[in-house]
Amino acid sequence: MVLKMRRRSGCPVSISLERFGDRWSLLIIRDLMVRGYTTFKQFKESGEGIATNVLTARLKRLVAEGLVETERDARDGRRLHYRLTEKGIALAPVMLELLLWASRYEETAAPCELMEQMAAHREHVLVEVTRRWKERDPEPFLRPFKEKVKSGRREKKRSGCG
Amino acid sequence: MVLKMRRRSGCPVSISLERFGDRWSLLIIRDLMVRGYTTFKQFKESGEGIATNVLTARLKRLVAEGLVETERDARDGRRLHYRLTEKGIALAPVMLELLLWASRYEETAAPCELMEQMAAHREHVLVEVTRRWKERDPEPFLRPFKEKVKSGRREKKRSGCG
Repeated sequence: MVLKMRRRSGCPVSISLERFGDRWSLLIIRDLMVRGYTTFKQFKESGEGIATNVLTARLKRLVAEGLVETERDARDGRRLHYRLTEKGIALAPVMLELLLWASRYEETAAPCELMEQMAAHREHVLVEVTRRWKERDPEPFLRPFKEKVKSGRREKKRSGCG
Repeated sequence: MVLKMRRRSGCPVSISLERFGDRWSLLIIRDLMVRGYTTFKQFKESGEGIATNVLTARLKRLVAEGLVETERDARDGRRLHYRLTEKGIALAPVMLELLLWASRYEETAAPCELMEQMAAHREHVLVEVTRRWKERDPEPFLRPFKEKVKSGRREKKRSGCG
């Protein structure tokens, strides 16, 4: 099977990175997990500019690795929807900690007040994200953060929320 | 500066992945964070088989991004030691959740009993890992997990600890 790779070691962190440690897979998981996206078109237009062939390959690998599954559209059998598996939604704590870390230490588009609330209520966030997945609640938990409008060149590097 | 990349979006998860979302950077962070490794040689021999030129490039990027800093050896000024910055050690929750996720859903070399203890005492783990960093305690928090000896071909895919 082409998608199988020889493991570098038995270390769980190493194995995690073999599963989704590239620049795109975790963004697809993010789109499925908190944005409510389910279709190829939505992932493609998600804002980071993934190439079509790369998206196809990443989705194929995520399915092969048991993180994502496909379902036929109930009304239009030719349309495919993607959905996280239980193994996939179990990455919610990793995703949350990544989100909080970057919003604290990097200049991001995430509103600091929201980040502080999420940091103070991690358990609640994880319960709610998991509930929406389980109940197939289509309401996105987070919408894409709006970029601040930049007028010309940035004056100085802004730091994170921390 | 060669190391700067144009950001794909303001999403914190996307920005995280630009920082260390490759197959090697997070393993170097792991070595620094829990194995007590501080030198190029130790990272090189860490078990996953990273190429020398790739390791050099990754370390350079981690330093440029403020996750890792270098220090001269107190006794031998030609020797360099690497150390996580505050921004780097703040990735401990991400690392812990990755470790727990993989040990639960993948076949890894991590002992299940230890993983269960760590999952039950996340806060304690994070406090202790951060304390060792702060106090420059050289005692590794975790040593590399021993691979189970495999006699010939694997009989069947073993699942994780979950």
